[in-house]
Amino acid sequence: MSEQQVASYPVDDTNRVKRRHQRAHYDHATVHALLDSAALCHVSYVIDGQPYCTPTLYWREGTTLYWHGSSASRMLRNLSEGQPACLTVAHLDALVLARSAFHHSADYRSVMAFGHARLIEDQAEKARALVMMVDRLFPGRTAGLRPTTDQELKATAVVTMEIEKASAKIRAAGVIDDEEDYALPVYAERIPVRSVLGAAEPCGRLMPGLARPATLSGFSAG
Amino acid sequence: MSEQQVASYPVDDTNRVKRRHQRAHYDHATVHALLDSAALCHVSYVIDGQPYCTPTLYWREGTTLYWHGSSASRMLRNLSEGQPACLTVAHLDALVLARSAFHHSADYRSVMAFGHARLIEDQAEKARALVMMVDRLFPGRTAGLRPTTDQELKATAVVTMEIEKASAKIRAAGVIDDEEDYALPVYAERIPVRSVLGAAEPCGRLMPGLARPATLSGFSAG
Ligand SMILES: Cc1cc2nc3c(=O)[nH]c(=O)nc-3n(C[C@H](O)[C@H](O)[C@H](O)COP(=O)(O)OP(=O)(O)OC[C@H]3O[C@@H](n4cnc5c(N)ncnc54)[C@H](O)[C@@H]3O)c2cc1C
Ligand SMILES: Cc1cc2nc3c(=O)[nH]c(=O)nc-3n(C[C@H](O)[C@H](O)[C@H](O)COP(=O)(O)OP(=O)(O)OC[C@H]3O[C@@H](n4cnc5c(N)ncnc54)[C@H](O)[C@@H]3O)c2cc1C
Ligand code: HEM
Ligand code: HEM
Repeated sequence: MSEQQVASYPVDDTNRVKRRHQRAHYDHATVHALLDSAALCHVSYVIDGQPYCTPTLYWREGTTLYWHGSSASRMLRNLSEGQPACLTVAHLDALVLARSAFHHSADYRSVMAFGHARLIEDQAEKARALVMMVDRLFPGRTAGLRPTTDQELKATAVVTMEIEKASAKIRAAGVIDDEEDYALPVYAERIPVRSVLGAAEPCGRLMPGLARPATLSGFSAG
Repeated sequence: MSEQQVASYPVDDTNRVKRRHQRAHYDHATVHALLDSAALCHVSYVIDGQPYCTPTLYWREGTTLYWHGSSASRMLRNLSEGQPACLTVAHLDALVLARSAFHHSADYRSVMAFGHARLIEDQAEKARALVMMVDRLFPGRTAGLRPTTDQELKATAVVTMEIEKASAKIRAAGVIDDEEDYALPVYAERIPVRSVLGAAEPCGRLMPGLARPATLSGFSAG
């Protein structure tokens, strides 16, 4: 596949990585894989000139991002009519201890996605997006749940944002010191950081005899 | 101690938790403990009406937050003269699977801190802040490193933000279902999520005979 055929997000002054630009990626494959590697994002938006940074869950379909909450949510109300937003996902992969203070660093992977957020008004489309949310995290789960009521659906807002621009930035370099500093008697290392799942805690009020469904086997401690 | 004596951040329309306000905390003790429980934050700021959400490391001293980067950094240049910012720290503690889609949730802890960011201009004060950064993460480490050069210090920008308003929000509830739904034959559970350190990876170019310093013993795999 030639360079031109790799689908990529357009780059302009908003999303062009200037600092350490060799760590930048704009192709759909890298950006989407990173977006699919997490459940928590941080969304930035502006109300009366004041920036806000709200942590929330999100999900992706093609080049579209979604997040959800209360129909009365201030964040969602302020992101319902095409206001600009920036949705960021970041992993801290390692702390890096170098021989100089200056070269201490971190390995990381992150994506910043820019667009204009809109509320999903259509109830069927909203219901579909919420099924996507549940089944993305817990494949097949929706089928076993009691149906969502109209009242619940009304109480819920889902926001959607087409990714207009995006950038990924990845550092996976470990210790990098100035060449002359490798001769110093200073200990240096990389300390990996990972997110792991603990042992699942069944609800204390389960109906007797209910076993953990096989569809959750992807979620095991470690 | 009476209610009045608990040091708290002032509350106004910016930082008053409206959604699930019973999960809110404004006291210094809760906010600061949460800020001290992480290294990674997300900072929101505005350039030409466009919100940005940048992941970065940070540290705290009293009611002051700091973060750092290149003197040429766009984020830091745009947060150098008292521009408004929101610095957010969030932990996803557990995924919560309920009996209805609607009551699926997450346990979490987060802080949103608001203020106006300024560049530290004084070189000595900047150097002190950077020592604080290194030694907060790695106690006593600065003492064993080669000194930072003037050129390195010039290349580095440190931003400081007095916390003017802040809120913490904590969900630690596990599964909560509608009372009548507990009778449904639907499996429900809480899946804990944790950040853990992996085994440290010593730099491949260490001077022969260099042992891992005892000051790093706080960082062990698990
Ligand atoms: C876990 C973690 C910890 C970090 N810690 C620090 C730190 O302590 N100090 C520090 O200086 N930097 C840190 N970074 C990098 C930081 O996110 C910025 O890349 C850096 O500060 C440069 O910011 P800037 O505004 O000058 O970048 P610029 O290159 O000017 O930003 C321009 C555009 O590039 C893109 N971009 C910039 N940074 C990122 C990113 N991280 N991910 C995706 N797209 C990006 C965005 O589209 C942005 O609008 C960290 C990143 C991560 C993920
Ligand atoms: C890991 C994690 C995952 C989350 N997932 C979701 C989700 O999927 N859907 C959802 O609706 N919400 C989620 N939340 C909660 C979310 O951060 C907001 O609290 C919620 O969306 C309400 O937003 P709002 O703007 O309507 O809040 P409002 O209550 O109107 O916000 C007003 C002020 O309250 C304070 N505040 C609000 N939220 C927080 C917070 N989380 N931490 C500290 N202070 C806060 C801030 O000062 C804010 O400016 C999640 C939080 C975390 C930490
Ligand atoms: C434990 C201590 C430290 C850690 C964990 C750390 C971590 C980081 C990280 C993750 C970055 C981002 C790199 C990137 O964009 O890919 C960064 C950038 C930077 N750090 Fe640090 N740092 C530390 C201490 C210091 C100190 C003490 C100085 C100065 C003396 C310094 C100077 C810089 C500079 C100048 C940049 C910008 C690099 C660039 O954008 O070109 N850091 N740091
Ligand atoms: C796996 C699926 C889901 C997860 C992990 C999840 C998680 C969350 C979280 C963490 C919150 C924030 C709660 C708080 O502020 O303390 C939230 C809020 C909310 N969710 Fe979900 N959710 C899921 C699915 C759904 C579905 C399918 C619906 C609707 C049918 C829904 C409706 C709501 C509503 C209305 C709120 C706002 C609560 C309030 O602010 O009062 N959620 N969700």
